[in-house]
Order: sequence, then structure tokens, then C-alpha cells
Amino acid sequence: MRTLDHTHDPTATSWIETANDPHAVFPPQSLPYGVFLADEWPRPGVAIGDQVVDLTALAEAGLLSAAATVAIRDYVDLTGLMSLPVAERVALRHQLFALLTDPKSRLATDSQLQRTALRPLASVQLLKPVDVGDYSDFYASLYHATNVGSMFRPDNPLLPNWKHLPIGYHGRASSLVVSGTAVQRPQGQLPPAQEGAHPTFGPCRQLDYELEVGAYLTGGNPLGHPIPLSAAEDHLFGISLVNDWSARDMQRWEYQPLGPFLAKSFATTVSSWVTTMEALAPFRCPGFTRGPADPPLLPYLDSTENADSGGLQLHLEVYLSSATMREQRLPPLRLSHGSFGNMYWTFAQMLTHHASNGCNINPGDLIASGTVSGAERSSRGCLLELTWDGEYGHPVPGSQRTPLRLPSGEERLFLQDGDEVIIQGWCENSTHRRIHLGECRGTIVG
Amino acid sequence: MRTLDHTHDPTATSWIETANDPHAVFPPQSLPYGVFLADEWPRPGVAIGDQVVDLTALAEAGLLSAAATVAIRDYVDLTGLMSLPVAERVALRHQLFALLTDPKSRLATDSQLQRTALRPLASVQLLKPVDVGDYSDFYASLYHATNVGSMFRPDNPLLPNWKHLPIGYHGRASSLVVSGTAVQRPQGQLPPAQEGAHPTFGPCRQLDYELEVGAYLTGGNPLGHPIPLSAAEDHLFGISLVNDWSARDMQRWEYQPLGPFLAKSFATTVSSWVTTMEALAPFRCPGFTRGPADPPLLPYLDSTENADSGGLQLHLEVYLSSATMREQRLPPLRLSHGSFGNMYWTFAQMLTHHASNGCNINPGDLIASGTVSGAERSSRGCLLELTWDGEYGHPVPGSQRTPLRLPSGEERLFLQDGDEVIIQGWCENSTHRRIHLGECRGTIVG
Repeated sequence: MRTLDHTHDPTATSWIETANDPHAVFPPQSLPYGVFLADEWPRPGVAIGDQVVDLTALAEAGLLSAAATVAIRDYVDLTGLMSLPVAERVALRHQLFALLTDPKSRLATDSQLQRTALRPLASVQLLKPVDVGDYSDFYASLYHATNVGSMFRPDNPLLPNWKHLPIGYHGRASSLVVSGTAVQRPQGQLPPAQEGAHPTFGPCRQLDYELEVGAYLTGGNPLGHPIPLSAAEDHLFGISLVNDWSARDMQRWEYQPLGPFLAKSFATTVSSWVTTMEALAPFRCPGFTRGPADPPLLPYLDSTENADSGGLQLHLEVYLSSATMREQRLPPLRLSHGSFGNMYWTFAQMLTHHASNGCNINPGDLIASGTVSGAERSSRGCLLELTWDGEYGHPVPGSQRTPLRLPSGEERLFLQDGDEVIIQGWCENSTHRRIHLGECRGTIVG
Repeated sequence: MRTLDHTHDPTATSWIETANDPHAVFPPQSLPYGVFLADEWPRPGVAIGDQVVDLTALAEAGLLSAAATVAIRDYVDLTGLMSLPVAERVALRHQLFALLTDPKSRLATDSQLQRTALRPLASVQLLKPVDVGDYSDFYASLYHATNVGSMFRPDNPLLPNWKHLPIGYHGRASSLVVSGTAVQRPQGQLPPAQEGAHPTFGPCRQLDYELEVGAYLTGGNPLGHPIPLSAAEDHLFGISLVNDWSARDMQRWEYQPLGPFLAKSFATTVSSWVTTMEALAPFRCPGFTRGPADPPLLPYLDSTENADSGGLQLHLEVYLSSATMREQRLPPLRLSHGSFGNMYWTFAQMLTHHASNGCNINPGDLIASGTVSGAERSSRGCLLELTWDGEYGHPVPGSQRTPLRLPSGEERLFLQDGDEVIIQGWCENSTHRRIHLGECRGTIVG
């Protein structure tokens, strides 16, 4: 677990004045990494205030360590930074913090360097932060698993394995896209109208989002070598917002017995910025509070440190804006708000479980949490749960099916073409500056 | 579908005499690609007789097209070759065939070039042919799906979706290893001894192999754009043998509801050589013969060309050698032999289905067939089916459980430490030279 230091001081300010605004999305305590397009070339950068700092320019000016310089110059994305040992990652944060908060730093005083190294955020195109090698998706929210399970097995919503291990599956890496990328409504096999009938092929009719949080990994375990829970936190690089778009009708038809496949692989959206575990240090909190009904954890998934501080004080919100709402100049509707703090499994547990069979993790691999839902209806992280359309368009007597009503007068059970889904998230507590994760946006196109 | 041409002439010979032996593994009609370590640097090569030809040396000598030269020099694996358009791939085969069969070719006559471009196969280390971006595994054998299903659902072995779509799941790319790599027995959660009990954590007790065939893909469809069945064959680069090692006890416990995860991700072995679709042209055959009990295919998975020649005349064998057998100098025991020709789904159908939701396929992506089993007991492609240990160590009255007897007097239900599994495969018919796919080997270490 990262320790608190002067880079977390809530009173620290930057000579980039926009970072000091109380509502600044990127204060000097945050320093998230991303990739932007500059002169038609992708470059790693760090966000502060309304600026992005070109890390390549800092490296070329000789302002960064030898290891960080190589990690920045030899890669067109953040894979290099994710390959650095944790001590180098901490040192880089300290160096960037000094360059951006000390009014006497080289960057603060060299106007020539500023011209090459600083660009207004509003002027740059942000790219996918990492060309992810392997992407794995978990199912770590007790409330989500219980809600979804209870639609199909009302008397027995949770399967026997669920509280013993973080259930996960391999996802598709190639179709990860950055926030802002339009999402094509997928075509696919749709389930037969009744038992014994044949499926049809056509556009998905039950398109959903899933509010998730992702963790980028640093890799470092050779094939055959697990990552113990005590080392797992050091293998987490940072987190992002994730929208795991889901075609519910396709999923229902295809997923037995090998799990979701085409229902997920048409697109998964990640946010542009990766907030490091160093930046998140002030917001760590206990993991899920297990009760007497919860089975004991197997030793490889159990540690005092993980129980005490494996969680994260992260507030999450989902908004929807339909094409009609935008035409009528209505603001996006908040669909849900909740916390990442009550996930049953921590990222450290997910990673340790993932590598427990010796599976090798590479720098830049991504694990996602699965849909983040809370105990309240207002904190359900996907339409399937919000509208309770568990019968997939065939409601039964006594159904709890509840279409969403939009301010435009429209109704939604699932997403329509033109709908934009916007996920936001930020860490907040009473003692530190808010750390915003940015946004994860996508609009459905037909 | 590739057409037959002079490179398939069974009477063609090479000036590399070992290629002309009737039992040659790599005759001049084959020309499979692989990657070998030369002077501590990975290089693409082509196998013929007992030699490997260094493609980089041919490119540097100016003997290949501009496109092929770039595809070879800019990559340390076969991804570049897999990025070439099909016409360039055919042209490269023709050029290599000419260089290796014409006794007046530059390579045949330039002893200086031969010294840099030819190496004895026995002297080189073969590496993984591709750093695969995304790996997907299917479940395309009717006999395998029926056998496995009938262990759990004797009255209803096949799920309703199975004959309508090629069931598949995303696999783990990072843990793909090349033939000859030792496979560490994975640890993991093992199922509770009885209902309501807790799982345990320890070494897998029911370790299995799965005989599969893989197809490397050329990519080329942007996100959101399907690959129609009529174009799918051009997106297949070539095939390899695959062993999808499986931890059956871990799989049984973890796989509901999101499919296999850690039971598969500890290692998947691929053979060293990739045999191109061009080389395989003489061995194409009709796909599975569907009967009146089989539902009609949806139009996107149905074409006359695929029905007539989507299959492949490929003979497959699996051998086992235990440590005791090797100590006693006993030869490996053949566990099964069968054909790839009666798979229910063709690779073209698997690929078209995979991309039907717009999922983007990249050059070097790998799809595997799932366990290749036939109708006979002797053609079952994994121990689960051969020993019928469907009750996972808890046989019930009337069980068909049948331990394997090894010539050393040992018995096997699943793999023990020290067991080596060897998969071999070759294409054969009465009119053309046999095309051997090489081997896929791995030994279990504890």
C-alpha cells in the first residue's frame, strides 16, 4: 500500500493556476497519465489544471530519471510507465509534482520548455492509454451478482462459488476503445421466441451499459509464478473508468456453457486518464465488511492489510443523454450514483486470484471490476438492474420491470441509438483534495 | 479458397535433398513458417527438409517483394507475414518455392548466401511463432460437446444453442507457450468435497490435455465491420496444433456463470510451425454433413463454398509418455487418433461468427477449434472423455469410468507430473504429398 507524503498535501498549489481552482478536475495532487495525439504522433502526458504536460518533452529536456526517460521515449502509450518498478513510479510522481508545484522549477521558469511541453487539454485529442495485451473482467459486486442472479434463480441468486473466489472471465482486448468513441450497435444471434424455435440474426435489441472500474497492471510475474496478496498492491499501476457494453439478448442465448463472448466483445470503453495508486493513497479504506453469513476466505485471499485498506473511497455516477434530450437541450439524466467502497472483492484479491494458477500478467494488462452496484436501487450499475428487465422483454406476472422515464418523455428498458452514456467518478474524503477520474463516454450508433 | 497450382505438384523436388525423402516432414510443397533464435535474435524462417531458411537473409539479399521484405524485417515474429494481403502471401510462397526447387535459383547457386540463410533444423531453438494479441477458443466438435455434456446431463447433452452457433470464449493470450515448454501443474481452488462444504486450495488433481487445431488470422476488419463468410477464408493465414491444457477440478468449481478462467489460463501450448492455407489447398474437403436432425444454418453461417470445401483432411494423433515409461525406454503410447474432417463448424464459420458483432480481428490473432473428438472411443481428444471420469473422482454406480493402462503398468485418469503429451497431425490424401504440421509437446512439472 502506498504511503502518504507531501504530494498528497491538500494545501499544495501549482504555478499552473487552473489547477488550484477548488473545482479543478486535475489538481496537483492527482497527476493522472494519458496518451494524447501531438503532431500526429501519440505521446504520454500528465494532466494538471487545464493543461496536459508532454512527458516526452520533459524526458528530452533531461528532467526525468534514466528509467523513466526510457519508459516514456520507447513507447507510444503508457506500457513503459507500467513496466517501471514501484519505487521508480513513486519517484516519477515526486519529480512531476516538484516540476509542477515549485515556482522555481525548470518547467516553471523556462518559457521555451513550456512552449514544447504544455498544451491546453481542450486542444488535444486523447487516445487509448494502453494497447492492452490481456483484458479480464470480474464480477465482484455482491449486489450486482445477487440482483442478476435473482432474476433467474429467485430462491438461490448466488451460486455456491461466488463468495469463495472472485469470479471472472477473459475479455476481448482488441475492442477496447477510448472514451468518446462511438459504439456500433452489434448484430448477433437473438434467442428463439419460445423453446424449440430457432434463433434469429439481427441488431441487438437489449443493449446495456455496465458501470465498472478498471485497474491497469504492472505485470512482472513469470509464467508459473503466482502473485501473493502481500505483493499484489505493488502490481497495480492505477485505475480508470470502464463501460463494459453488453448485449443482453445475445448474452442470454450464447453464454452457456462457456460464458459471455460476442455479447461483450463488440466494444468496451475505457476513460482517457489513468489515476495512479500513488494518487489514490489518501482514499484507501477497508474492504467489504464480511458478516457471519459469509464463508471464511481461503488464506491466499486473506490478509489484514487487504481487509483494512484494500478498498477505495470512490464515488461513481452514470448519466444518460438521448438524442431527443440533446435536441431539447435537456441536461443528461443521472441514472445512478454509488460507491466503489462496498465491492466484495478488492483489486488486490482479483489480481492474486488471477495469478494464483501461475498465469503471467504483463505490463499494461487490464482487469475490470464487473458492474459496480450497491444495496440501493439508486446505485444499480446497469439498465438490466435498473429496469429489472430480467425476463428480457417477456415480463411475467408479478414482474418488477420498471422502464426508465427520461425528462424528454421517452422511456427506456435498454439503450436506443443516439443514447450517450457518461460515467464519472471521483475520490473524496474530508481531509484531501478530490481526485477526479475523468469521464467514460460513448454514444450508440445504429 | 486457395487454388491449386504448381507449388502443389507432388512430383516437385528440392535441391535440398532431405526434402525429397518420402518420409520428409517438410517437403517442398509444405513450406511452413516459424520463428527461430539466431545469434540471440528471433527471426522468421521457413522449414524445408532438415533445414530452416532464414527469411531475413533472403529479404536482405533482395530476393523477396518489397511488401514481404518489410513484413519480415520489421517484426521479430510472424505478425508481419500475417498482415500481408492474400495475393502477397501467395506470391511469397511462389517465390520461396522457386528459390528452393529450382537448382538454378540464386539460393541454390550462391554458397555465400546459403551460409547465411540455411541452418540445420536440429541446431536451432524454435520460438513461439506469434505474440498473439487475442486468443479465442471454440467448442466445435459435436462429439466432444456431446460426450462432455452427457456426463452432466445424460438426457440432454447438447444445449439448445450448440447447433446454431459456434460456441466460443475468450482465452488468455499471455500464457500461450511454444511446443517443448514445460507446463507447471497449476494451483487453484478445488471444489468442496460435498455440497455445502468449503473449497480447498492446492495443486490441480485433474489435469488434462485437449487436442485442438488453431488458425492464425490475418485481421483486417475495423471495429464494427463483420467479416462475411465469403471473405473469411482469405482472413485465415494458416494452422497449428494446439494443446489447451485444462484443470478439470478447478474448471468445475469456477465456471458458472462466466465460463472457464483459471482452469485454462495457466498454459496453452502451440506448435512451432504454422502451415499456410496455401499449402493446405489440396486437402480441403466438405464440412460436417448435416442431417435432418440438424437445424438449418442462419444465412450468415451458410454458404455452398463453405459446405463443399470448408473442411480439412487432417489426421491427428495424441501420445503419452510417462516418466516411468521413459526410464523403462518404452515408446510413447498412442492415446487417440482421429480426423479434423468431421468438425461441426469450420474455421471460416468460427471467424465469421466471431466478427459478426463487429469485433475487430488483428493480424496474429489465434482461434482454436476446441477439443477434436470423433465418433469412436479411439478418437476422443482429451482424458476426460477417454477415461470418462465425468464424476471427477467420485464415480457413481454404473459409471463408465475407465482408467488408461500404460505399458509401464501405471494407470491414469488424469495427467501426473512427468507425463509428456505429444500431439501430431498431418494432411494426407491419395493425390498429394503429405503435409505434416509438426508437433505440439509439453511435459507436466509439479
